[in-house]
Formats: sequence, structure tokens, C-alpha cells
Amino acid sequence: MKVEGRWRRAIEPVDGGAAVVVLDQARLPYAIGWQRLADLDAAAAAIRDMTIRGAPLIGATAAWGVALAMRADATDAGLERARAVLAATRPTAINLRWALDRMHGVLAPLAPSARADAAVAAAQAIADDDVAQCEAIGRHGAAVIRAAAERLGGARPVRVLTHCNAGWLATVDWGTAIAPIYKAHEDGVAVEVWVDETRPRNQGMLTAWELVQHGVPHTVIADNQGGHLMQRGEVDLCIVGTDRTTRNGDVCNKIGTYLKALAAKDNGVPFYAAVPSPSIDWTVGEPHEIPIEERGAEEVRFVAGRDADGRPARVEVVPPGSAVANAAFDVTPRRLMTGLITERGIAAPSADGLAALFPEHARR
Amino acid sequence: MKVEGRWRRAIEPVDGGAAVVVLDQARLPYAIGWQRLADLDAAAAAIRDMTIRGAPLIGATAAWGVALAMRADATDAGLERARAVLAATRPTAINLRWALDRMHGVLAPLAPSARADAAVAAAQAIADDDVAQCEAIGRHGAAVIRAAAERLGGARPVRVLTHCNAGWLATVDWGTAIAPIYKAHEDGVAVEVWVDETRPRNQGMLTAWELVQHGVPHTVIADNQGGHLMQRGEVDLCIVGTDRTTRNGDVCNKIGTYLKALAAKDNGVPFYAAVPSPSIDWTVGEPHEIPIEERGAEEVRFVAGRDADGRPARVEVVPPGSAVANAAFDVTPRRLMTGLITERGIAAPSADGLAALFPEHARR
Repeated sequence: MKVEGRWRRAIEPVDGGAAVVVLDQARLPYAIGWQRLADLDAAAAAIRDMTIRGAPLIGATAAWGVALAMRADATDAGLERARAVLAATRPTAINLRWALDRMHGVLAPLAPSARADAAVAAAQAIADDDVAQCEAIGRHGAAVIRAAAERLGGARPVRVLTHCNAGWLATVDWGTAIAPIYKAHEDGVAVEVWVDETRPRNQGMLTAWELVQHGVPHTVIADNQGGHLMQRGEVDLCIVGTDRTTRNGDVCNKIGTYLKALAAKDNGVPFYAAVPSPSIDWTVGEPHEIPIEERGAEEVRFVAGRDADGRPARVEVVPPGSAVANAAFDVTPRRLMTGLITERGIAAPSADGLAALFPEHARR
Repeated sequence: MKVEGRWRRAIEPVDGGAAVVVLDQARLPYAIGWQRLADLDAAAAAIRDMTIRGAPLIGATAAWGVALAMRADATDAGLERARAVLAATRPTAINLRWALDRMHGVLAPLAPSARADAAVAAAQAIADDDVAQCEAIGRHGAAVIRAAAERLGGARPVRVLTHCNAGWLATVDWGTAIAPIYKAHEDGVAVEVWVDETRPRNQGMLTAWELVQHGVPHTVIADNQGGHLMQRGEVDLCIVGTDRTTRNGDVCNKIGTYLKALAAKDNGVPFYAAVPSPSIDWTVGEPHEIPIEERGAEEVRFVAGRDADGRPARVEVVPPGSAVANAAFDVTPRRLMTGLITERGIAAPSADGLAALFPEHARR
């Protein structure tokens, strides 16, 4: 996708794999800056402090983190350390574990001397696979948007509500939940987006920034607004991302997703999650098995934006004497889902639905 | 309630009724300032720009606005003008119309020369009635909290979730949804409050500020968080306010209330609205008949708080190229309500439930 007029990916190797650069998403959209990650600790810190975020991009960055680690220490101990340091950064996104397992599977059998080059190739493959998966999700999801447009018969654009940022910034390119919107838009389908601001970190502003850059019509709304819009018939479908999907089809995503799914169910609005297969945890069957990350109070206490001079700034919104809680994710039960848009097509939100598209996992 | 150690009301007459002072809630809790309203236009502006807010306080301020207008022009034309100017300030809160009708009913039959003094007495009576209603709501609601405490058997405090500010700042004193919490707390019942921040205007920070001042334990959460807390059994009941209640028991309240009611229903959490009778619109039966106020984009675009030096400040959070929508209220259908806490007791959320407590209206 384009950033300041140039085609970029959200993570890019530089200097022949000696480092990667990532967009600093903690400062976006109030400042555009690329950050260079040249070693394991820098990659781990970028994931932990949310310089980068989004389950697929977390996976790709972790893969690159292993590759960077192998340049410094390609021994078995070095490989184990890289895996442990990166695995400890964020507990909920399953793509992180998936990418680390895949890197380990490639690298562990090799002699240490062969690992550095193989790690670069493996990390690049994970990034390329992510792009291919997102593009396929875009195609399958665009068909849903197109069908909605046909039902509307041109009376008005299709209105899609999304929560958090599952656009290309959350992946390597294209995005997951937003990929169908980009594809439909490119195909000439009239589509508009309701963008939840997604407190406390306001990742909706990342989505809005992406959509501004790409020229897709959209409207930012407070997280409180979506239910009312659905009651009034102003939402044709919802598409969200996922940080971890159970093998039964429950979707763990950014806090607040569950509330929108309840409203969609109550108003007959189709509710989809965009689910690249690395976000499916085949070992987990029920929502309560997913660890929910509790993040720091300062994310709720402070709000970031621009000051009157256009510079990045923040204000403290919570009174000093008040406590704060900040769970980062919730789980939307499969009974509230219409379908899961995977790279292989749209699955029914059930064990059978996912198994039909991914029989190699269902057999396990 | 106490402000900086002194017992105050949210609106107080001064100089023998020549003016009123109100807490400037647009700047709270980041600055504590009282604003003097000395004429009709000042009272109307205070309602329109949300210097004061909260359905009951809007009603009381409108009543004082009429009283101030009568000092300047007590003719029939002056009375009509006061009513028209004040009625146009906010479309949703029914207390506004109720207070204006009540003032008109008192003043219209009088000779113009008698109106100024009568208007002060009538406005004072509306304010006093509001305090009495809120205190009664507090008593009835506290019984619900006490019953929850008994079910918990002291295992932990009762946890009540609330949305927006329906505390004493939204009324003349005590509050509506928060009155039961204050009463239970005064009675020694262990109660804690989950405070929704309530974007876009973050009135939850007013609730948090009140609770800090009064010493009630509470935790501020993003609006996205409540559903997850209910899924985890962390919420024992919800109590919210209302800006207008249909005669059938549907509750129009701050945007986002509907989403919390859906989550409460989905998790078996009792969901109450605190409903002083002036907030019931006996002329309206169904939700779609209630006009929903669409407010300015700047409320979503900017977030107010304190800067690093502790001074009131704001940041712009929405990218410049993005559109914004901002409906201020939604309607929670009666099927999602457990009960309506009125000054006469707890009504079932139905026409019959309200009629049983308010037969004088049901007969009309």
C-alpha cells in the first residue's frame, strides 16, 4: 500500500537482511516515522511496546526477530533464547507462536552455520505468505460486499463497520478485515466504512489513516455508536480481524468486538471475521482457554493526538484518584458469527466449518 | 454533595434569584469553575453548549432560565419567547419540555406583574422536587444493591457498571443512576463501580470525579470493556440514567447504553435504568418516535484532558481527511431492561409496570 506516495510494506528487510524497518505505529497517524530493528531485543521491544501491532504483523516481525538473532548467535542456545524472548512479548496473538514454531521447524534441524541465511529466507517466506493470504481473504470477502451491493441495487453504497485496525498496517500488506474493502473498492463497488475509534489505543485512527491514503470513503465513530447505527439500518455488514480463533470458530479480537457482534445479531446484520489460517489455534476449543492480555493503565489514562500546532501530544483524561482496568481483547462466541473469511474461502463458524477448509489440521 | 469540601448543589440561586450559578461541566474534571447565569440567553447557552448536562439538571436549568427571563420581560410574549428559546436547545431530554410545561402552567394564568416572584418559587420547587425524587430513587435502588450484596455473602463488593454521568452533576443533587450507589455506600454496603468513560464527551470522567470526591471505590474502563467484564462474571448489575423514557418502558440514554444492555442480557446481568418521572414521555410509545440529537463532529475529533503541566488541554485524534458521525443517544428496548427505578419504586419495564406506579398518567 502507498505511504506518502511510495508503495511500502509494513515491514521490510534492508541491508540484505541485516535489519528490518517498520512503520512506528505508536506514533501514527500523528507522525510518520520508520524504525530500524537490527537485533533480537529491538524486534521484541517493537512487539511489546506496540511500535508494531496486529496479529499477522506480530507474526512476521517475530520471524524477522529470529532471523536477526541468528546473525548474532546461531547456536541451539541462541535459537531457544530468541524463541523465549519473542514468545514472552504478547500473550494473546496466536500468530506469534505460529511464526516462532515455523521458524524453529526450519532452523532447528540445520547446522548453526546454515541458520542465518535460512532464517532470512524463512522470514521472507512468512511475510510473502501473509501477503498472499491477505490478498485471498480480500477476494473472498469482496464477494460478500459485492453481494450486499447487488441487494442494495445501487440505492446507496454498502456500509461496512469495522473495529480496531485490521488493515494493511496490521499485516505485511493488504490487511485482513480491510482487504475485502480494498478489493471491492478497486473493483468499483461503492463501499463506505464505519470506523470504530477503538479506545483505549484508538487503532481506528490507523484504519482511518489507511483509508484516507487509499481514498476509500469512511466515517469515524465513537465505539458507542455502532449499535445505534445498526438499529437504524445504517450498517450492511461488519468485518473484524482476529488475534486468535479457536478451532470451533470463536474469535478473540480487540476489546469491544463482542459488543458489536451482539448488536449485529440483534439487528440481523451479518458479522464476519477475517481469519488467516495462522490465527487459528487448533489446540484451543473454548473461549476461556485463551489468555487475555491485561495492559497498562496509562493506555486508558492518556489519549494521544495532535496539539493545536499539529504536533504529536497527549492529554490525561482520567482523574488522578481513579483506578483503571484495561483488558486488551475479548472473545466473540461463534454463535454470533456469520462466517470466517479465510484464505481458502468462507468457513461456517464451527469446528466442522473450519475443518472442511483445513482438513490437514482437523485430522490431528 | 461536597465540592472542595463544601456542600453544594449543581445549580444554586444567588442574589435572591437575580441569577444562578452552575458548575461548568464542559471543563470538569480538569478545572473546577462556577459560571453565573443572569439571563435567558445565558441559561439557554449553558444548556446548548453543555456547560450543564444531564436530563434532570437540564430541566432545572430551563426552569431557572424562565425565571430569569421573567425578570426582564414578564409579558405573555416574554413567556412564549423564553419557552421557545429554551425548548430549542436540546431535542432529546424530555425533562426540558416537562420543566417548561410546568413553568408555563404556573405562570401563564398570572398577571405579568406577579410572574417574576412566582417563577423563582416555581423553579426552586422544581429543583427541590428533583432532589426529593433522586433521594427516593437512591433508596429504592440501594435495596437492589443490598440484595446483591446478600447474594454475594461478603465474598467481594457488589460491582455496578454505569455509563455516562447520571450522578449528582446530572441532577440538582444525589443523581439518578448513582444515587443508589451513594445510598448503599452510606449504609455501609461494600460497593464498587465500573465507570464507562463514555466517548465522545467522556462524561464517565465526571462520574469518576464525583466518586473520588465522595470516596466510593471505582475503576474507569474504556466503553469497549464492559461486555468482556460481564462475560467474566465481574459485573453484578448495571444502572444507567435516562434522557427520555417511553410510556412502554424503552430507555433513551447516552449513546452506547444499548450495547451494554445487550451484553447484560447475554450474560444474565440485571440491567436497570434510574427513571425520575419527569423523564417519562407519556406521549411516546415506541423508540423510533424519539428524536435523536446529532451533535458536532468536534466532539469526536477532539479529546479534552490535562496536559503535562496539569492544565486543561485537548488533542485532535481523528485524521484530517476523515468524516465523523456523532449521534448523542440511543434507545435501549424495554425487552433488555430488568426494571425502572422510579421515585415511587421499581417498575417493570412495560406500559403496565409504569402505569401501576403512575396511574394518574396512565388514565390519560
